[in-house]
Amino acid sequence: MTQQKLQTAVLGASGYAGMELARLLARHPRVGESLLLRREAENGTEMPPLPLNGHSRPLQPFSWATLEKNKVKVLFLATPHEVSRTLVPEAVGRGIRIIDLSGAWRLKRDEHRAIYGFCDSDPQKAASLTQSAIYGLPELNAERIAGAQLVANPGCYATSVILALAPLLRTGIVDRERGIIADCKSGVSGAGKEPSARTHFVSVADNLSAYAVFGHRHVGEILEQLALQATEFTFAPHLLPIPRGILSTIYLRLRQPATGAEVEACFRDFYAGRPWMRIFAPPQLPQIQFSLHSNYCDIGFCLAPDGQRLVVISCVDNLLKGAAGQAVQNMNLMHGWNEKEGLN
Amino acid sequence: MTQQKLQTAVLGASGYAGMELARLLARHPRVGESLLLRREAENGTEMPPLPLNGHSRPLQPFSWATLEKNKVKVLFLATPHEVSRTLVPEAVGRGIRIIDLSGAWRLKRDEHRAIYGFCDSDPQKAASLTQSAIYGLPELNAERIAGAQLVANPGCYATSVILALAPLLRTGIVDRERGIIADCKSGVSGAGKEPSARTHFVSVADNLSAYAVFGHRHVGEILEQLALQATEFTFAPHLLPIPRGILSTIYLRLRQPATGAEVEACFRDFYAGRPWMRIFAPPQLPQIQFSLHSNYCDIGFCLAPDGQRLVVISCVDNLLKGAAGQAVQNMNLMHGWNEKEGLN
Amino acid sequence: MTQQKLQTAVLGASGYAGMELARLLARHPRVGESLLLRREAENGTEMPPLPLNGHSRPLQPFSWATLEKNKVKVLFLATPHEVSRTLVPEAVGRGIRIIDLSGAWRLKRDEHRAIYGFCDSDPQKAASLTQSAIYGLPELNAERIAGAQLVANPGCYATSVILALAPLLRTGIVDRERGIIADCKSGVSGAGKEPSARTHFVSVADNLSAYAVFGHRHVGEILEQLALQATEFTFAPHLLPIPRGILSTIYLRLRQPATGAEVEACFRDFYAGRPWMRIFAPPQLPQIQFSLHSNYCDIGFCLAPDGQRLVVISCVDNLLKGAAGQAVQNMNLMHGWNEKEGLN
Amino acid sequence: MTQQKLQTAVLGASGYAGMELARLLARHPRVGESLLLRREAENGTEMPPLPLNGHSRPLQPFSWATLEKNKVKVLFLATPHEVSRTLVPEAVGRGIRIIDLSGAWRLKRDEHRAIYGFCDSDPQKAASLTQSAIYGLPELNAERIAGAQLVANPGCYATSVILALAPLLRTGIVDRERGIIADCKSGVSGAGKEPSARTHFVSVADNLSAYAVFGHRHVGEILEQLALQATEFTFAPHLLPIPRGILSTIYLRLRQPATGAEVEACFRDFYAGRPWMRIFAPPQLPQIQFSLHSNYCDIGFCLAPDGQRLVVISCVDNLLKGAAGQAVQNMNLMHGWNEKEGLN
Repeated sequence: MTQQKLQTAVLGASGYAGMELARLLARHPRVGESLLLRREAENGTEMPPLPLNGHSRPLQPFSWATLEKNKVKVLFLATPHEVSRTLVPEAVGRGIRIIDLSGAWRLKRDEHRAIYGFCDSDPQKAASLTQSAIYGLPELNAERIAGAQLVANPGCYATSVILALAPLLRTGIVDRERGIIADCKSGVSGAGKEPSARTHFVSVADNLSAYAVFGHRHVGEILEQLALQATEFTFAPHLLPIPRGILSTIYLRLRQPATGAEVEACFRDFYAGRPWMRIFAPPQLPQIQFSLHSNYCDIGFCLAPDGQRLVVISCVDNLLKGAAGQAVQNMNLMHGWNEKEGLN
Repeated sequence: MTQQKLQTAVLGASGYAGMELARLLARHPRVGESLLLRREAENGTEMPPLPLNGHSRPLQPFSWATLEKNKVKVLFLATPHEVSRTLVPEAVGRGIRIIDLSGAWRLKRDEHRAIYGFCDSDPQKAASLTQSAIYGLPELNAERIAGAQLVANPGCYATSVILALAPLLRTGIVDRERGIIADCKSGVSGAGKEPSARTHFVSVADNLSAYAVFGHRHVGEILEQLALQATEFTFAPHLLPIPRGILSTIYLRLRQPATGAEVEACFRDFYAGRPWMRIFAPPQLPQIQFSLHSNYCDIGFCLAPDGQRLVVISCVDNLLKGAAGQAVQNMNLMHGWNEKEGLN
Repeated sequence: MTQQKLQTAVLGASGYAGMELARLLARHPRVGESLLLRREAENGTEMPPLPLNGHSRPLQPFSWATLEKNKVKVLFLATPHEVSRTLVPEAVGRGIRIIDLSGAWRLKRDEHRAIYGFCDSDPQKAASLTQSAIYGLPELNAERIAGAQLVANPGCYATSVILALAPLLRTGIVDRERGIIADCKSGVSGAGKEPSARTHFVSVADNLSAYAVFGHRHVGEILEQLALQATEFTFAPHLLPIPRGILSTIYLRLRQPATGAEVEACFRDFYAGRPWMRIFAPPQLPQIQFSLHSNYCDIGFCLAPDGQRLVVISCVDNLLKGAAGQAVQNMNLMHGWNEKEGLN
Repeated sequence: MTQQKLQTAVLGASGYAGMELARLLARHPRVGESLLLRREAENGTEMPPLPLNGHSRPLQPFSWATLEKNKVKVLFLATPHEVSRTLVPEAVGRGIRIIDLSGAWRLKRDEHRAIYGFCDSDPQKAASLTQSAIYGLPELNAERIAGAQLVANPGCYATSVILALAPLLRTGIVDRERGIIADCKSGVSGAGKEPSARTHFVSVADNLSAYAVFGHRHVGEILEQLALQATEFTFAPHLLPIPRGILSTIYLRLRQPATGAEVEACFRDFYAGRPWMRIFAPPQLPQIQFSLHSNYCDIGFCLAPDGQRLVVISCVDNLLKGAAGQAVQNMNLMHGWNEKEGLN
């Protein structure tokens, strides 16, 4: 008996993350042909020929009727956060499960959410959804994702930083008072597809620049997921002259001197059985190229001769493990499928 | 006795060519502090810190009164062609000499100009100026540039192609009926500073694309300057994933078999004494890097074993020999100065 | 009943094409775990972590005994051409089918082969194999590939040029006497993995250079496959500052004026049913990004207003359709499988 | 009366720093035509056409006789450190002043020098020279450089880090016990011109990698010049996919909360009158592009809301302020000339 395929839709399928999602879903063995949607406001009506291997399918305009007609069970939102904030309450009411790639539902605490300036039409419902949304980082929250109605897919920087720090912080070996620093470097697709002076080729090529130091939106996610205080964590993102990929260099101090083997074991134990984590044995370190075009998060580290200063290197492809790949991984968990399904 | 310095102004000093002009004029020994101007429409009011070595001078809004107050003798227009088409008649009336970097005044023939769609308020005066404007390619027109009121600075592709072909065509050794092909490759600054989907880093990086094949605006200049028929010349520009530089690969056939030495002599004789031309002896060929950040036009070639098929390679920095550097070279000629002044 | 999987081996699995082959074979549904081999001379014994998704399998040294023990039925050679020239006679004698990615067996005519300077130990046998080898371009030679013992996988430039020209030449609409010009641009992986001054990052970045004009090894393949005379074809390759991808811009003249629709039909008819060819309808043109990381050859064109001057643009990923992907496509044909198997 | 020009020589003029030196010296108004030299071991005998604007002068083999014949007063060494360690004692004996761009003479303490593994033929003389060599960072050591016989030109990373930290450390406002972290990113020319797997275009493009964390040679310089303990300083260099330029992101904690104005004043006071330092006012931050092709060191910073966590950004062109430009600046100081001479 042929199993029925899952009906899905992608809203915002012409953006970078949306195109990757469309590409991944098109070859996922358990998913039917996805509905590729655009908001009314978006004027591009055709997918570029790239992601679907030559079948440049036109995007359809979004409507609830279209979703209903196609019996969509899972809706991926690759939309600006205000759009997501507006659509999710209704989608939930209609019984559609949502995987939201924006920052709309990632944060539980008001002080972290303030930076987004949400303006909800039904604040009470929004507050309730905010608390019930599950932060979609499968390596930390697999069980809760499985039953979630609304999954808030993590930010790309946040994915890379949280996965590098969680094993160390949860085992309590980090001297948090000495502070944790994340010096992150991202390719340009992380800044989105909208043309701007900042993403002009001539501004980026042959260049490197820091931006939003101490003020990036992903800081809130990192603090909440790792239960850190704001003063314990310093975050400095940089724009790399490459299309995609993130490398985070994370600096911290251990409470007690440790050996490299102990640090490596901490990572390996924490991520045992997790199919999309790769731990590098010293002196090997991850590089952006290694995880590019894959759903892996690669982690390696260097320990100082004093055994206390630790540098952790973490790499993800910002459009896959940092966005669309992780969204598919979450979809897999939500349906009891293997986490690797459709991602190889 | 100290010689008085020339008063100049640059309108459009925040664009790529305008910034280079501002930088070159700032260190030109015979030029006073240039007036850096913006059109009312331009909202950027500050120069980026780059070109003037740390002195980020604010741009002043353009007005004729400002030009007059500063006794501007030479006005550089790094503006869209419609702006140039509007301002030049008045500037000429005020006795200001103009070096225009746009395509507004380069073309004598109506059929070539049609592509620009000019809409002149005083068509008669515009027509008269069109005919009196001098095409500012110093290696071909030095004498006429010296006395010009209005110099039409050539396009970047056109500079690279015309300089590669002029020696061969003027000595009559090219079989024009067999056709001439220019396959040109340009860095992204040639597309201007305006952000667009096409100049987004992610669109350009790891890519190469052809565009405007048979339909690029610079074709008209090339045909007019080289006295070619439209059917004799094929032009295919390509967008390179680099910030600046042009390499043109030009294919043609000689009427009679020749030797490499004869071809080399043709180039060397034609450009004898021209300080900004470099002829490469085979098997050396120009590369984009060699002329980058200089005002040189580099030319090399390969001759087929049959002695008739000839491939000419020509490189310029599109912002220098292809724009701002050539404009300064023209200014030098207009004042009887050494062509190299301020360009080393 | 489970079908038995094909046993394959890759010699030279640490080079760029070899790594891609290892990656493709690892996920091919009809192929068993491939033997990854190195020549004695190669000192790298480990695959980089990239291609096999984290399983950095050590390369084994090559020996006939190892091939026999593993019952290898198909041997891929991603080796220098001299190595291939040496190994193939013995492999054929042992009944192993070979897909050779080098230039060793592509050329039938002595004058084309001279550039390689082969030095065969058994010239008679080598000559016989040379004549029986099948040029592995599936879109032209599918039937003969199916039964081949020795498949000579085409060069990357040659793939891109031959596929762009074959439909036009075979229908006889090209004015060959007027000459055909291929201006090709390739990413750096085409130059191989051996470090050199030429492939140093600083030499390539922010640069473009022509090389081997009139003298590139792939010219022979193109002439033979298209039945062209040497004087009818001009080939100028250029090195692009990107890791991978080829764009060829090809210039020719039609005997009689044609319409764009006729040209498009010529391509579409010729490649009807070929799964790895994509024909672009004007004014759309292929770009390197569109075929990157895929096995597609993309073809588009521009026709001059005179209906006779034609510019064809052809793009392939030099490591896939230009090497490893095409090798797998050939393997599929050799076993009666769908050409797309393992390549999606 | 015409002042006599200084006679200089550059040994290693075909490397990246050596080429920049040759270029800078060729246009320095107080320097005669420089002798461009190669070691016997170097096989390249020609300068590439790039640096001397088209005059590809052959390099002469090094000999003391050649130096003497040309009355060389200042010898620049752009050589491996062992070569410099061998040549300097004799050069000093001959009364030639040396500006050494290698790491041979930068370090006073044995424990820092150990990483270089020097093997001196006359250890006593070498030890004496080691102690008398002046660390050539003009912003810290201008007076001692003026009278120096042997100037040890700083490393590129060290220049960027020391200049960012010196003002803060010397005013005693840094909580050194909390540790200082330098996350540095450099273009590929910093790795030298020797081709290697690591500098292959395909290895670097679309990539970022950390290397030599806790173990880079420049750490010793930084510790010595800033009087830091090894455990107080963490250094992690990264290889950027760009040809040149360094951006260092430096993390530290102030003893007491401060205001941005106080931090800015600390930098501005310390570097008052220094022509090659540019301090950026918040929220402006340096980018690699801003100092590229100039001798500037650009410094900016972000202060956390808590007033104690400070992120300093420092940029230099590794081949200019990080090597050849700083060498010329040192030469200027050694002769009582303006520090800017020949560097604009």
